[in-house]
Amino acid sequence: MQMNDPGLWTARFQAVRRHTLALAAPLSSEDCGAQSMPDASPVKWHLAHTTWFFETFILAPMEPGFAPFHPAFRVLFNSYYNGIGDKHPRPQRGLLTRPSLDEVRAYRANVDARIAALIGAVREGAARERLASLLTLGLEHEQQHQELILTDVKHLLAQSALWPAYLDEPPAPASPALSPQWLACAGGLATIGYDGDGFCFDNELPRHRQFVEPFELASQLVTNGDYLAFIEAGGYEQAALWLAEGWDWVNAQGLRQPIYWHRGEDGRWFEFTLAGLQPLDPARPVTHVSLFEADAYAHWAGARLPTEIEWEWAAREHGAVPGTPPSLPFPGEAREVEEEGTLRQMFGHCWQWTSSSYAPYPGYRTAPGAIGEYNGKFMVNQYVLRGSSCATPGGHARASYRNFFPAGARWQFAGIRLAR
Amino acid sequence: MQMNDPGLWTARFQAVRRHTLALAAPLSSEDCGAQSMPDASPVKWHLAHTTWFFETFILAPMEPGFAPFHPAFRVLFNSYYNGIGDKHPRPQRGLLTRPSLDEVRAYRANVDARIAALIGAVREGAARERLASLLTLGLEHEQQHQELILTDVKHLLAQSALWPAYLDEPPAPASPALSPQWLACAGGLATIGYDGDGFCFDNELPRHRQFVEPFELASQLVTNGDYLAFIEAGGYEQAALWLAEGWDWVNAQGLRQPIYWHRGEDGRWFEFTLAGLQPLDPARPVTHVSLFEADAYAHWAGARLPTEIEWEWAAREHGAVPGTPPSLPFPGEAREVEEEGTLRQMFGHCWQWTSSSYAPYPGYRTAPGAIGEYNGKFMVNQYVLRGSSCATPGGHARASYRNFFPAGARWQFAGIRLAR
Amino acid sequence: MQMNDPGLWTARFQAVRRHTLALAAPLSSEDCGAQSMPDASPVKWHLAHTTWFFETFILAPMEPGFAPFHPAFRVLFNSYYNGIGDKHPRPQRGLLTRPSLDEVRAYRANVDARIAALIGAVREGAARERLASLLTLGLEHEQQHQELILTDVKHLLAQSALWPAYLDEPPAPASPALSPQWLACAGGLATIGYDGDGFCFDNELPRHRQFVEPFELASQLVTNGDYLAFIEAGGYEQAALWLAEGWDWVNAQGLRQPIYWHRGEDGRWFEFTLAGLQPLDPARPVTHVSLFEADAYAHWAGARLPTEIEWEWAAREHGAVPGTPPSLPFPGEAREVEEEGTLRQMFGHCWQWTSSSYAPYPGYRTAPGAIGEYNGKFMVNQYVLRGSSCATPGGHARASYRNFFPAGARWQFAGIRLAR
Amino acid sequence: MQMNDPGLWTARFQAVRRHTLALAAPLSSEDCGAQSMPDASPVKWHLAHTTWFFETFILAPMEPGFAPFHPAFRVLFNSYYNGIGDKHPRPQRGLLTRPSLDEVRAYRANVDARIAALIGAVREGAARERLASLLTLGLEHEQQHQELILTDVKHLLAQSALWPAYLDEPPAPASPALSPQWLACAGGLATIGYDGDGFCFDNELPRHRQFVEPFELASQLVTNGDYLAFIEAGGYEQAALWLAEGWDWVNAQGLRQPIYWHRGEDGRWFEFTLAGLQPLDPARPVTHVSLFEADAYAHWAGARLPTEIEWEWAAREHGAVPGTPPSLPFPGEAREVEEEGTLRQMFGHCWQWTSSSYAPYPGYRTAPGAIGEYNGKFMVNQYVLRGSSCATPGGHARASYRNFFPAGARWQFAGIRLAR
Repeated sequence: MQMNDPGLWTARFQAVRRHTLALAAPLSSEDCGAQSMPDASPVKWHLAHTTWFFETFILAPMEPGFAPFHPAFRVLFNSYYNGIGDKHPRPQRGLLTRPSLDEVRAYRANVDARIAALIGAVREGAARERLASLLTLGLEHEQQHQELILTDVKHLLAQSALWPAYLDEPPAPASPALSPQWLACAGGLATIGYDGDGFCFDNELPRHRQFVEPFELASQLVTNGDYLAFIEAGGYEQAALWLAEGWDWVNAQGLRQPIYWHRGEDGRWFEFTLAGLQPLDPARPVTHVSLFEADAYAHWAGARLPTEIEWEWAAREHGAVPGTPPSLPFPGEAREVEEEGTLRQMFGHCWQWTSSSYAPYPGYRTAPGAIGEYNGKFMVNQYVLRGSSCATPGGHARASYRNFFPAGARWQFAGIRLAR
Repeated sequence: MQMNDPGLWTARFQAVRRHTLALAAPLSSEDCGAQSMPDASPVKWHLAHTTWFFETFILAPMEPGFAPFHPAFRVLFNSYYNGIGDKHPRPQRGLLTRPSLDEVRAYRANVDARIAALIGAVREGAARERLASLLTLGLEHEQQHQELILTDVKHLLAQSALWPAYLDEPPAPASPALSPQWLACAGGLATIGYDGDGFCFDNELPRHRQFVEPFELASQLVTNGDYLAFIEAGGYEQAALWLAEGWDWVNAQGLRQPIYWHRGEDGRWFEFTLAGLQPLDPARPVTHVSLFEADAYAHWAGARLPTEIEWEWAAREHGAVPGTPPSLPFPGEAREVEEEGTLRQMFGHCWQWTSSSYAPYPGYRTAPGAIGEYNGKFMVNQYVLRGSSCATPGGHARASYRNFFPAGARWQFAGIRLAR
Repeated sequence: MQMNDPGLWTARFQAVRRHTLALAAPLSSEDCGAQSMPDASPVKWHLAHTTWFFETFILAPMEPGFAPFHPAFRVLFNSYYNGIGDKHPRPQRGLLTRPSLDEVRAYRANVDARIAALIGAVREGAARERLASLLTLGLEHEQQHQELILTDVKHLLAQSALWPAYLDEPPAPASPALSPQWLACAGGLATIGYDGDGFCFDNELPRHRQFVEPFELASQLVTNGDYLAFIEAGGYEQAALWLAEGWDWVNAQGLRQPIYWHRGEDGRWFEFTLAGLQPLDPARPVTHVSLFEADAYAHWAGARLPTEIEWEWAAREHGAVPGTPPSLPFPGEAREVEEEGTLRQMFGHCWQWTSSSYAPYPGYRTAPGAIGEYNGKFMVNQYVLRGSSCATPGGHARASYRNFFPAGARWQFAGIRLAR
Repeated sequence: MQMNDPGLWTARFQAVRRHTLALAAPLSSEDCGAQSMPDASPVKWHLAHTTWFFETFILAPMEPGFAPFHPAFRVLFNSYYNGIGDKHPRPQRGLLTRPSLDEVRAYRANVDARIAALIGAVREGAARERLASLLTLGLEHEQQHQELILTDVKHLLAQSALWPAYLDEPPAPASPALSPQWLACAGGLATIGYDGDGFCFDNELPRHRQFVEPFELASQLVTNGDYLAFIEAGGYEQAALWLAEGWDWVNAQGLRQPIYWHRGEDGRWFEFTLAGLQPLDPARPVTHVSLFEADAYAHWAGARLPTEIEWEWAAREHGAVPGTPPSLPFPGEAREVEEEGTLRQMFGHCWQWTSSSYAPYPGYRTAPGAIGEYNGKFMVNQYVLRGSSCATPGGHARASYRNFFPAGARWQFAGIRLAR
């Protein structure tokens, strides 16, 4: 964030904050209050927690005469910051019928106004730098929750036999997929990690070297049609294709298809989408699969998942950069140049599971205090996803970005890119 | 229900239905949508399910050209009637953000209008009898859910650190409790079960004989003050006072007081009520205890719980009859004559745990079809409560009424009357 | 126990104790150490715990200069007596590879010798009475564990794909079952509970009156053939036949037959028995069913289960008394007179589920101290079984005997007698 | 294994097989049958499964006229090879009281004799190569189970309040630990993986390059004394030291010390060892800690855990090689040169947790068929341990060896080496 122009700060701040409210606009207060599983949160909670972040990490230390909007909110809307104190139990976020959605909107408006005032008031250099840094972090944090609002609402609506739609209209069927190609990467000593002069999360640093053996990366994502072939070939019934823990996971839950796929009585396949239940579109990238499913598919296809290092190396080598997010949050919707030899669909469709466990880069350091709990403490038993999805807000993606989820997570827009 | 006057039927029908809406009136649509635990249901679900009952058991078989208000509601709002078909999973009732509260209100209005039309239209004698019988059952069923609305909302609001209140004002502190007396009952051959000419549930029949040994029953309920003495004497730490399963239950959950009691940092006791968190009132009957707690208290007090036969016998012997429900749903609020030797607080304060397992009376028969699932299939591993509570609607209580819950249930207005 | 003749006391004591060892004789030390589920115990544990009972409740208070055989055994072999102190966790009894089986046998021999010496040494009248009373209780307790040794070993051996046999030979196929008859009982005021001058457990007292409506009881037990017809009629697939909790239980575990029944690939049925896997014998009483299964079967057969009062009343009316236990622990093996109008198979085949919840008789009192934990604290969420089984030792059964297990227990020799 | 001399093959084969039996020699048949938790197996099962491995993967395909020793063993003693067919459920291995320990010994003797005969009989070159390769794998597999026999027996004996000892005598107290030093490693392009001409597991291949940043490694392991300081500083109570999942793990189980540590009533610390309960020896390496504990300790000490690449690089740079295993399986017992600047305790004390998730090396390939299930399918949600322990048999360790367990595993001899 440029530190010279408070007006620009305020404009950016307000734009991001308004976008969050816009995402909630199609939803009733009832929709905003429910929590479909412990991993997901109510939209109302997202609205409040992102506000809590600004109040707790900026207003509390920097606002003269700070008093909390409501003393109980410090606990109610703390996600996982032990350094801040107690937390409302995560699986019970859906029981917070009070404060109401209107009260949470008032909370947002109150904090927004105070942040705007603070932006105008802080003059001293170090304080301005600190403020800029925290504002940026808060907005990037809010953008992460913007994506979660969409994935969590999708999961909630999918629980109802009414198949409610978040969007009025589905997109037109996608064009038939291009033929995938294997793009060769020569390997060598790669420099990995963020190297720009804008914002990045601490987990993208330090920039460091990694040796990469030669490999090939698929030019595009695995499609619904590809994945259907895997299912029809008995992919979910063959132990030999699966990681041992994945095989246990499949059988314990009796899984036979991706989380939002449904087979009609006549054998036709449907997919629950943000526009309700729709016929499965074979040309779109498959999404909402777990690492276990992605790995089994790759095994079946005679390939493997890329490491995160390979993914980042290839992205840089091919100059893959995020474009404008699609107008509708559907994988396969974002438009891009279609040329032979191009590395496509790296951003704006689905996050791409890698075989890399989420771990600190050599020399990784967390920030002191509670804000240091942002990333580092989650670096165990999770796997890195790279790229971005159709639900990622504009300006939030980059080649060094490291998303991460447990191997069994399915409710994110997560898909499959093969390597070998 | 008198079968001669359709106007009276309609008036009674509308009065009960309106009362249900009135109970929901202080609540936001968010409050009405949440489900605090699998045993409880959202208020919105209660509003819809009671309507579903009329639609399924009266309109479907009796309305000419019947078409459902919404085809999915047959599944969504079926509670436990396997004879009707599939059911939405009970623990996920809180995820039904659609239909909205407004849509459920429209559902109620639609069914109400059609029932009113049906009442006017059915002329033939047997059909009228059938209609009267089902209408009555539907209204008694709705009254049961009226009480559940209050207990389920209380449990939901208790989950929030904001201690939200359903009522604007708590009642004034109760007058000091009378001294309890032991009232002797001579025993002998009792005739048990409903013997009036109004409505009763099938589980109150057939009327039959039971032999009762002489016993004594406490003239009034155990108070908060009494129960506090049990806690302070270490009642929750002495295995010898508890049933073995109760002792496991206490320790597995680390329990040390009734579900809504809280101890402040200064040692003072508070109780969460429908008027929010309030100082514990020692003169009111203790409520929201499990059978395990009731039994341990009785053991500590050198007494026992009555059987349901003893309770009913004593009620009849002493002519205990339900009065007007209290104006506020607080135990200890209902007024009654206070005389020496009177059996008090039998109705309108707390349901009273008995030592009787819920079982069929000799010769018990269920109705044919799905409606026969109302009571009989629950007659295992549950215990009978007698009387009625401060949340029981007017006209719903009687001496032969058999309420029932599992031994660990705490969220009902359930209290303790001693016997020996 | 006759208090005049120490020689008789000793002989009875030694006979019961020897019988326990004889039951373990066909088993290896490995067989004796394993625990197949938390509800069952290793045979070695039974051998030690019954010895612990004599050591703890007789030697400790009565033996001059008492010192424990091993100080740790007080905890290791305490079953559930909180008054005695800590207990080794029940689900981990199978991990006690030390003490070894030989050491437990030495423990038994040591305590047996000291008990014999005590019998000879106690002269004073009140002490002799106390000793006689505790010895008797200890031996009745040991006999209960004799039956558990057989049921627990059967459950253990059933876990192995080798189908190991406890007995060398199965019995010959049973004769075809007699036709069952309905025997009418007139009802009236029954006097219930133990009325002899020998031993009974505290839960069989006090003798008291109960009013019984007229009823009919089946002359004999439901057979394997009868139960197979229930299965073949889809009994396990029809919700309407089951208690609600039973239906959940059936579906959660995917049950389709009694616990030890297996269907071969050719459709023939087999039953795991103490003589290994054997063809299902349709003429023998069905056994190892839960209360849920017994109740569903009765429902399907247009009947019901008897109450425990009905069972005891009928047993007395028809003069049913226990005979000699069968030479092999198989239901259907005990011989008895077969005449029209006879009430058969009340003892020596299978325990018979009743619809009665296990509850105290009016005026029931427990003994003071830890020994009072024997029965009373289990009187919740369990159901009474009457009669005795093919595994019940001789002299242990009587018409007033109350056995009890939770509604889902299947590993006991529990069968079905119908009433209506 | 040298392919020219069948006598040498046979001698090596017999030596390894005999050592397994020697490890079981101090144990009773009861000790050998019990299973203390699903992650551990009974010793008898280890004895049988290692034999099953030779029978299934060598005799079945290579022995003329092969017939199994017992047809049921194919299922009973299959660990996790889906390609072989069904498996006895892992958590129920302790219920296999049949076959007896003696029968399993007979199974071993039978298979040993047939393997010896096969070694003498196979003459053809390719078959000899195949046999040599499978024999070697079978023996390395058996050595892995030799270590598991010790760790599983230790866990079993630790469940008993009698603190039984596997060994007669504990070792003398260890000498005071040397002062740890930080040994600098320059970093650069490392070549990683097995490069000898003997045996290695498939997961140690292919040899490949990795770039390593400069780092420092501790010269020796963290001691019990060091770890006690962490406990006394409140290490188990400070969320900020722990990975988020580790913090949940600590609190869900209420952990406050390593699995085998016990604090006496006088505050003195003891450790359960293979020689029974012993005073905690502060000079020995801490062992039986999870990755969560190792990571929290490192965090507290201002350091971190090494990656597996750093560990292997340092081992090679410093020429660390496995020595003779200690005479008693206690960490701190193996002797080695103690010089300034030496990298000590890399082998023969405790496995050392690394921060590296268990993942395939670039170009990793599994063997075809069931034998390919050996390693690859476990490469998710596990962490690599390097080195070897006091329980690792002689000749089994090497610098490229990759052991792996889930982050919460504590029952292995796993300790802590710091890096920074």
